[in-house]
Amino acid sequence: MKTRFVLINTSHAGNVGATARAMKVMGFDDLVLVAPRWANVLRREETIQRASGALDVLNNARIVETLDEALDGMAHLCATAMTPRDFGPPTRAPRAHFAELLGQTDSLSKKELDMPAATGPRPDSVAFLFGSERFGMQNEDVYRCHVALSIPTDPKFGSLNLGAAVQLIAYDWRQALGGFAVQAATPEPQLADAAAVAGMLKHWEEALTDIGFLDPASPKKLMPRLNQLFNRAQLSPEEIHILRGVAKAMSKSALNKAMPDADKTTRSADTPAAQ
Amino acid sequence: MKTRFVLINTSHAGNVGATARAMKVMGFDDLVLVAPRWANVLRREETIQRASGALDVLNNARIVETLDEALDGMAHLCATAMTPRDFGPPTRAPRAHFAELLGQTDSLSKKELDMPAATGPRPDSVAFLFGSERFGMQNEDVYRCHVALSIPTDPKFGSLNLGAAVQLIAYDWRQALGGFAVQAATPEPQLADAAAVAGMLKHWEEALTDIGFLDPASPKKLMPRLNQLFNRAQLSPEEIHILRGVAKAMSKSALNKAMPDADKTTRSADTPAAQ
Repeated sequence: MKTRFVLINTSHAGNVGATARAMKVMGFDDLVLVAPRWANVLRREETIQRASGALDVLNNARIVETLDEALDGMAHLCATAMTPRDFGPPTRAPRAHFAELLGQTDSLSKKELDMPAATGPRPDSVAFLFGSERFGMQNEDVYRCHVALSIPTDPKFGSLNLGAAVQLIAYDWRQALGGFAVQAATPEPQLADAAAVAGMLKHWEEALTDIGFLDPASPKKLMPRLNQLFNRAQLSPEEIHILRGVAKAMSKSALNKAMPDADKTTRSADTPAAQ
Repeated sequence: MKTRFVLINTSHAGNVGATARAMKVMGFDDLVLVAPRWANVLRREETIQRASGALDVLNNARIVETLDEALDGMAHLCATAMTPRDFGPPTRAPRAHFAELLGQTDSLSKKELDMPAATGPRPDSVAFLFGSERFGMQNEDVYRCHVALSIPTDPKFGSLNLGAAVQLIAYDWRQALGGFAVQAATPEPQLADAAAVAGMLKHWEEALTDIGFLDPASPKKLMPRLNQLFNRAQLSPEEIHILRGVAKAMSKSALNKAMPDADKTTRSADTPAAQ
């Protein structure tokens, strides 16, 4: 879906750079500035610093004089406005609005779904409009929009930075569009099967007896408890291997101590421990 | 739920300020810095500027030497780490992980629900760990964590600013915790009932006939089309009133033009229009 971010009367160069970066990490690249404070804002040092590599977004950005020019070709207009108005488009949370716009209302809770589903044609393009840092959007600009998106913030402190607001909207919109896959940093975890867990527990039961922690005559609930613990831990085959190694070392250590003069490297089940 | 944000080896004062602001707008206030580059970072000018009013978060923030001290009392540890590792906790998207952590898996799509639901006790506290701007988190710090949260970014440009990352995590976590209500900027829209819409359309049908746009002998599908348009528009009673006013003015204007010498203020249905 064609997506454009429009900054109106932006005054801080850093915010323009942060916006470019916030857009690019979420895969968007169409940025238009309406009458920014600095005519050269796309080339200012602070802009470029805060853009941190999103220079292509800055290079492709357009600066225009009027909102009309900025909205050329866009169908669905989303204001981002915090200040209450007595009249205007409905105020919605971004996540709920995006789901409805894209017909994904199945994923919404009843609480979120506070508007009847739209039944008209779906837009093919969406523009997000952001007002100036100090004054927000002008009423006449909000009136043109289909919705006023309001990022749900603490009612006691709703002062969201412009770059942060762009980042949140870009994120929610990208997620609604299907999102990017999370790059797994580690290989897919493999789950050991129940038999492997049971075998390892049997091994531990012997070892815990050897080290004198488990009394076979009065085992209480120790082994079932460990079984539950290891179930929750969702052990991998490799971890089963490690835990069996630990059990083996426990037994070896206990039996070596108990038979200080015997061969330290083997444990014979039919040799009763000295003492 | 007790929530803490932990910045490890942070080097840019601006990011500390941005973090405080990002936390506060989402209603969080527990910030701990582990060995930041600047010992006085909480009082630096850039920090305070970027915090923009979230000074209480800065004032309450703690600076400690080790991650151990920072994690005091926290149960569930979330790393935020981008760089692949051959070993470590599972990598998850924040939204899916938070839903599972809080037992809200109903709201997840099959695609998102890529891990079996946790069946152990639920944590009562969560810490989010953020590494340094240049090097991210160290492996030994990631190994301590229960999960590595990865914000799904464009695979071609995953360079998320630290403050932006904190903002996104704080937002998703707040939303998972139930979120803040969106403050409606306009009064709740009231929907006109179907009878009101039908009455208005009748009025328009007469007016459109009066102005010569609708030919009653060959009405085609004009009125059903307008009916559909106005259904989609989800008219309010006030808008019905406006549209009836428009219809009235259309008729008045048409009849006055047609009867230039007649009384211009009334329309009599039984007076045939003068040629």
